[in-house]
Amino acid sequence: MDLHIVIMAGGSGTRFWPLSRQKKPKQFLPVISEKTMIEETVGRLLPRIPINNISFIANSQQTEVIKSLLPLIPEKNLLVEPQGKNTAPSLMLATAQVFLQNPKAVVAALPADHLIQDSTLFLKKLEAAAAAASSGQHLITFGVPPTYPATGYGYIQFTLENPLRFREEPFHPVQQFKEKPDLEQAEVFLERGNYYWNSGMFLWQADVFARKLEQHASSLFPFWKRMLEAIRDNDASHIASVFEEIPSISIDYALMEKAEGTLMGKGDFGWSDVGAWSSLLDIWPQDGQGNALKGETAALDARCCLVYNPHKFTALIGVQDLIVVDTDDALLVDHKDQDQRVKDVIEMLKQKGKNEYL
Amino acid sequence: MDLHIVIMAGGSGTRFWPLSRQKKPKQFLPVISEKTMIEETVGRLLPRIPINNISFIANSQQTEVIKSLLPLIPEKNLLVEPQGKNTAPSLMLATAQVFLQNPKAVVAALPADHLIQDSTLFLKKLEAAAAAASSGQHLITFGVPPTYPATGYGYIQFTLENPLRFREEPFHPVQQFKEKPDLEQAEVFLERGNYYWNSGMFLWQADVFARKLEQHASSLFPFWKRMLEAIRDNDASHIASVFEEIPSISIDYALMEKAEGTLMGKGDFGWSDVGAWSSLLDIWPQDGQGNALKGETAALDARCCLVYNPHKFTALIGVQDLIVVDTDDALLVDHKDQDQRVKDVIEMLKQKGKNEYL
Repeated sequence: MDLHIVIMAGGSGTRFWPLSRQKKPKQFLPVISEKTMIEETVGRLLPRIPINNISFIANSQQTEVIKSLLPLIPEKNLLVEPQGKNTAPSLMLATAQVFLQNPKAVVAALPADHLIQDSTLFLKKLEAAAAAASSGQHLITFGVPPTYPATGYGYIQFTLENPLRFREEPFHPVQQFKEKPDLEQAEVFLERGNYYWNSGMFLWQADVFARKLEQHASSLFPFWKRMLEAIRDNDASHIASVFEEIPSISIDYALMEKAEGTLMGKGDFGWSDVGAWSSLLDIWPQDGQGNALKGETAALDARCCLVYNPHKFTALIGVQDLIVVDTDDALLVDHKDQDQRVKDVIEMLKQKGKNEYL
Repeated sequence: MDLHIVIMAGGSGTRFWPLSRQKKPKQFLPVISEKTMIEETVGRLLPRIPINNISFIANSQQTEVIKSLLPLIPEKNLLVEPQGKNTAPSLMLATAQVFLQNPKAVVAALPADHLIQDSTLFLKKLEAAAAAASSGQHLITFGVPPTYPATGYGYIQFTLENPLRFREEPFHPVQQFKEKPDLEQAEVFLERGNYYWNSGMFLWQADVFARKLEQHASSLFPFWKRMLEAIRDNDASHIASVFEEIPSISIDYALMEKAEGTLMGKGDFGWSDVGAWSSLLDIWPQDGQGNALKGETAALDARCCLVYNPHKFTALIGVQDLIVVDTDDALLVDHKDQDQRVKDVIEMLKQKGKNEYL
């Protein structure tokens, strides 16, 4: 089987501010370990995937960062999206590239900045999903069994009974993609048992992708044909004009939830999208008081705090549930339950023209 | 009247860590304004006191800092204490110096690192206190009318009725100096009305000081005589040997509370000893949510926080009652009510040999 990985590295997430900046989003930061998240993402694939089969899609600036972080990746595997138009256009471009080499090849689209704790299990499931995709009938996605009624993830509703099996792994027919729910809804989802978190990982055979696009996303299909043309002609300005015109839409809504026969594999390999500093409280090692600390820290009567201050000494005294992130030019101190309001700070900085902190 | 100011600059307070360090205690830091506290202390005297009449007592290292901060102070006014032995020995040395020039001169001993908000009133009261001292009968101190039942200050118990008057200011006979009380005691003190905070400011005529010392601190008196000799002989090694042998004791306990006829002036000129970061919450200007902020700060749903981070951008989100102090190599985040535990951090750093942070 010819499996091509496309790593989606175009995100411009701001939720790890002040460590993450416009020029350095989460995928290029050492958030989980000493390695950047994109290095982690590539590293977990290499035991089974040849490096020539690993591509990246990102904007031109980000592509330069990828080059410097991962110098072994062949230049031709660095795909540049002329502008950010969400996941559907960029995955169409990446898939068109593969399609022209081998229409029967399978594409696995993976985010650059997610955590997967069990790499071995992940690779096993990825290969089973690739086998499911190369059956030539199905688009494939991974759903993650929820461990709590999360309101920060989308959900995939699926048929629990009689899954199809590929390499002994069960794959369930997808019924519907659900937007991020409120808490009440999320509790219902958790109770029902057939709603998994949407991991944002997708697989398809290139020609199946084209066929499904034609059938279920007919407004996008002309752009697909233009992309094939442009790649054949090696015409960057044509690609740019396609991206100029194409609507901004996610692959979930453009295709996955509309196509018939989409299957969901069980992503029980320790997945997290690491969506905010507070998510690291459960990921980094904790001291006896539930503190997760990067950098030399004295924690006196401090509980459930996260500190990222690797190059300085930090003292916490009599505090709890705080996120403390110190960088060269900015310091964040927030309550862990208000983590999402970091975006309000960024909005404020934008409005005040304080671009040096963005 | 010949009034000599002695500024006690030998403190090694650690309560403003991580801004204050062994080599840079509070008096040498710009805690209140853009000026260091010792510059503020000198600045408020200059409208009435000739610079030649302002001396300093500190250790040799601190004396170098004073020289660099206040280059206009004559070299001979920089008195070096060979070792820290609390306030009695250092004020004996400073007073002996004045005594040899003019035994009828008045010495005013003032801490280098206290806040006085009304300088004009302070100077007026200082001159009244100097007049009281030059009556040749009394040691003088300033008590501060308490505004809350503080447990962080010592108290002066005094006779409320029939004060003596100098330059129309009342001076009350001191009954007793009281150690820092517990809250219950402090509440009683506040209710009684004749317990004021001990400001640590003292005045005496040089010869009265000598006489009271002989009468009430007879174990110290031989050291006084040796100091006079050593100064006359300009013999630094003799002064060093006196400091080697002299007991470490505060002037309050050695002399002020034992001497008869000590008088207390009313220090209602906006005094604070600025004893900890949290004390600045009431001193620095506040925003509408009770935050006191030095450095560019976004405070989203943040209340009653103090931030000292003048060279960086700080974001506070959903937090309250925090002290946040960021320096080049260390960061403090503590609850304002646990401010005094900064000393535990310093103790811990000492034990671990982390001298770079001390």
